Amino acid sequence: MNGLAEQFGEAAAVLLGDLALVWSDLALNTSGIPTESLLAVHRIHDEMRVELMAGQYLDVREAGENTYSVERSLRIARYKSGKYTIERPLHIGAVIGRPDFSKNTNLLRALSDYGLPLGEAFQLRDDLLGIFGDPSVTGKPAGDDLREGKRTVLIAMTLEALNQDARTELLSHLGSPNISIEKIEELRALITESGAVARVEELISELSEQSMNAIQDPAIHPSSREFLTYIAQSAVKRSA
Amino acid sequence: MNGLAEQFGEAAAVLLGDLALVWSDLALNTSGIPTESLLAVHRIHDEMRVELMAGQYLDVREAGENTYSVERSLRIARYKSGKYTIERPLHIGAVIGRPDFSKNTNLLRALSDYGLPLGEAFQLRDDLLGIFGDPSVTGKPAGDDLREGKRTVLIAMTLEALNQDARTELLSHLGSPNISIEKIEELRALITESGAVARVEELISELSEQSMNAIQDPAIHPSSREFLTYIAQSAVKRSA
Repeated sequence: MNGLAEQFGEAAAVLLGDLALVWSDLALNTSGIPTESLLAVHRIHDEMRVELMAGQYLDVREAGENTYSVERSLRIARYKSGKYTIERPLHIGAVIGRPDFSKNTNLLRALSDYGLPLGEAFQLRDDLLGIFGDPSVTGKPAGDDLREGKRTVLIAMTLEALNQDARTELLSHLGSPNISIEKIEELRALITESGAVARVEELISELSEQSMNAIQDPAIHPSSREFLTYIAQSAVKRSA
Repeated sequence: MNGLAEQFGEAAAVLLGDLALVWSDLALNTSGIPTESLLAVHRIHDEMRVELMAGQYLDVREAGENTYSVERSLRIARYKSGKYTIERPLHIGAVIGRPDFSKNTNLLRALSDYGLPLGEAFQLRDDLLGIFGDPSVTGKPAGDDLREGKRTVLIAMTLEALNQDARTELLSHLGSPNISIEKIEELRALITESGAVARVEELISELSEQSMNAIQDPAIHPSSREFLTYIAQSAVKRSA
């Protein structure tokens, strides 16, 4: 059991989160977008938030798993980054622009085909930056994902590839908040030499290509293609 | 710090609460009520939930206060029971029936004048039942609010009226989950003899009267008066 102060802090934090969720509805409902668009947005917005809770639950559950899994981490990336960060916002943007697009299943499917792999690729780039990123660019401490013990696809791929001793060495440091910069350098080398960085880069390329191919779908208006291409490149090519 | 299992349980519970909040939107948005009503309901529904979070926050904060206060407990009853349980549902019902009622400020004000005191009276009746209620009727253990140490208006009025010794005696038992039935009987006598039960009953009568007077407001259609009277009586006259 926690003390009274901690209980109060936790309860207040939960309520603040609920309030933020309600305020997001308020913002949408008072945004002034036309009624037809608003009704169409609500359907996507509600579905998006159900998916988000599911993805967040998978992420929370993952922290308690005994094993690491590339497949599970990819699924979390799909729900949290693919759907929530890219696919659903694209659908929402489409129906705000033209409410009749909510019935254009070809367009919505094309945006999903573009958005889902792009979101996964974006997350994989984030995984790389979380370990190899320059703090002056990312704004996060060096090797932040190692300190946090974040269960990324990159780490799962590394653990798959390492021999028993190296795996034990990596696992013993994952989630240590005070890990030294020298140790971070060593672990970075371990991760790179395992081949996991190359595998993640390859996966990013494949997913980006799927995304770029989807842009050519006839349901997507030619005037949108340049912008979607620019977004895809920015999301995936962020520098380390 | 809690263990991993507790952390997981708490995180999952928060997400389940968020999911329920989203599902309530989904239920509203897919209810099939006409568009004009739906738009009007959203405005009230959003406002209602902001009020609810505020009331729940006050309630959570109250648990950490060093003192008891009639005024603060009444304010919590107003937010949590008055607004959330009665006033806003009446407003929502009105605009579902007739979306143009969302502009009928006289009607909405009359429903507030009816609903807010009724909600407080309802909560005060609940306070009495929480200490004097028959478990076979309330479905809760005898003296449940004593075991829980609930900071009700009834308890605050009792503490105001008691002398120092009796106050210390009552405070020493509030929030003891294993309090005996004999001790509950003693505390019930203490509460009654303090005059707090009579004060609460008087307050319930005053609030009910305010509520009944509001029903006569010309903005309320005569055909609704019988039903509103019935609801008010049921809410306040529940037997102990």
